[in-house]
Amino acid sequence: MIHLLDLFGVAVFAITGALAAGKKKMDLFGVVVLALATALGGGTLRDVILGAYPVFWIADPTYIFLCTATAVSTFVTARFLKPPDKALKFADAFGLAIFTVIGTKKAIFLGVPDSIAVIMGVMTGVAGGIIRDVLSGEIPLVLKAEIYATASLCGAVTFAVLIRHFPFVPLPAPAAITVILALRMAAIHWKLSLPVFPPGKK
Amino acid sequence: MIHLLDLFGVAVFAITGALAAGKKKMDLFGVVVLALATALGGGTLRDVILGAYPVFWIADPTYIFLCTATAVSTFVTARFLKPPDKALKFADAFGLAIFTVIGTKKAIFLGVPDSIAVIMGVMTGVAGGIIRDVLSGEIPLVLKAEIYATASLCGAVTFAVLIRHFPFVPLPAPAAITVILALRMAAIHWKLSLPVFPPGKK
Amino acid sequence: MIHLLDLFGVAVFAITGALAAGKKKMDLFGVVVLALATALGGGTLRDVILGAYPVFWIADPTYIFLCTATAVSTFVTARFLKPPDKALKFADAFGLAIFTVIGTKKAIFLGVPDSIAVIMGVMTGVAGGIIRDVLSGEIPLVLKAEIYATASLCGAVTFAVLIRHFPFVPLPAPAAITVILALRMAAIHWKLSLPVFPPGKK
Repeated sequence: MIHLLDLFGVAVFAITGALAAGKKKMDLFGVVVLALATALGGGTLRDVILGAYPVFWIADPTYIFLCTATAVSTFVTARFLKPPDKALKFADAFGLAIFTVIGTKKAIFLGVPDSIAVIMGVMTGVAGGIIRDVLSGEIPLVLKAEIYATASLCGAVTFAVLIRHFPFVPLPAPAAITVILALRMAAIHWKLSLPVFPPGKK
Repeated sequence: MIHLLDLFGVAVFAITGALAAGKKKMDLFGVVVLALATALGGGTLRDVILGAYPVFWIADPTYIFLCTATAVSTFVTARFLKPPDKALKFADAFGLAIFTVIGTKKAIFLGVPDSIAVIMGVMTGVAGGIIRDVLSGEIPLVLKAEIYATASLCGAVTFAVLIRHFPFVPLPAPAAITVILALRMAAIHWKLSLPVFPPGKK
Repeated sequence: MIHLLDLFGVAVFAITGALAAGKKKMDLFGVVVLALATALGGGTLRDVILGAYPVFWIADPTYIFLCTATAVSTFVTARFLKPPDKALKFADAFGLAIFTVIGTKKAIFLGVPDSIAVIMGVMTGVAGGIIRDVLSGEIPLVLKAEIYATASLCGAVTFAVLIRHFPFVPLPAPAAITVILALRMAAIHWKLSLPVFPPGKK
């Protein structure tokens, strides 16, 4: 179940990576690389920093095939279709939620302190998008706008707290996913954002 | 033999890194850092993601000395000489070929699936150039133009397929290197490139 | 003692990261991420490349809390205060000195060759600032200007040489720190810099 959701998240992130490559007029190879970096970058950074070898996509080539197929499909269909922005934003929120929960859970199961596990969850959720933006020559959007990483952070904290108190109840993951989705939906709908630095200036 | 070719590839990539630093008016330290990042970045990323410790240049300081010496030489001679573009492009194609083969081979010998080994070969070949471009504030060229990574990909696939069928014949490496060189030469000569995203628009 | 100095260096680097985020009008999350990346990025890269698990800040969450608290404080006080440039530059030189010594020492104690240990020391000192600049869309300053990385390099060499000859005397660390501070102070005061590439042109 979690694995299916994971693959869904990977596909969604691969699409956002491929579309970002499209905006910069990259070629087919660039499209695939940005799809891979966006979808697998966060988890790779998490696994490398934790020393959790083998890195998840090396143990299971499904990830590579799924990303590549998604990127090529996006490349081909973009000729006929405008990307459905609303649907993509919702799907992306879902991917963020799944990735955050998976990252936090993996770190906790590896025995790191809860505070570090929360960091790893957020890193799993947002680092792929940061790498995507750096590779396409942009200042990472997630550092500048909207409640995005903050939603991930709240979800990771929710998961870490709940799994300590209810380790045998299937509650922490659904609760954390709900928190992240709700915050993202609210942020998109009311255009909420964190205060910008420096505060007090316009 | 492979080791000598490897060092040749390292020197060539170090030169392209140093020249990229020159275009951005970096100082001597920046020139050395870009040379190191270009020449050793791909293999470092490969080893770290595979968990193949020690990373190749930590086990053998020759790499660091070679890169540094090459970068300083490039820095000094650039005062008197214009870089020989044609020769450099050919040498660079050779470096790409060597790095791809070495990366694919190392991954296969570590026992990862062939599809992952191919990814590692391409990563060894192109990641250094991507890091170089990110550090000099450019969108990575390899994601945008010419048959470069694609040549590396075809070579890595050639190597992975041949080594499964002819493990005891010294055929896979020369064949893969030939494929990459031929594709790069053709791409440079006829200015071939992959289709650009989004297809159908100009 | 070294640990206290280390925490001081972390706090100073976190401040420079937070201020860089401010210049790009990032939100609170971006400010914290840039503070973390600047303060912990160099040491993380060192530990990952050396395979020295667990990475230092995973073993000890103090680092994360200190960076986050420093970033939030910087964010809040920037509303009322102009950052004290002179004091920051001196503090930053101190952070560079501490990080360089800690990085070189850790690598030597892990048994790598001295030349590699020096690279690791410089990487610990300067990579955080490079990551900070890449994330904020700038060409890394350290590659372009002033005797910064060079000071770190001289300090790392000083430390590596002295610790081989005086392993039981508390001399190497203070001597290396003094070398780095002196070079940075001189560079700031007389605006010294390395020759720029290509030499001979203006």
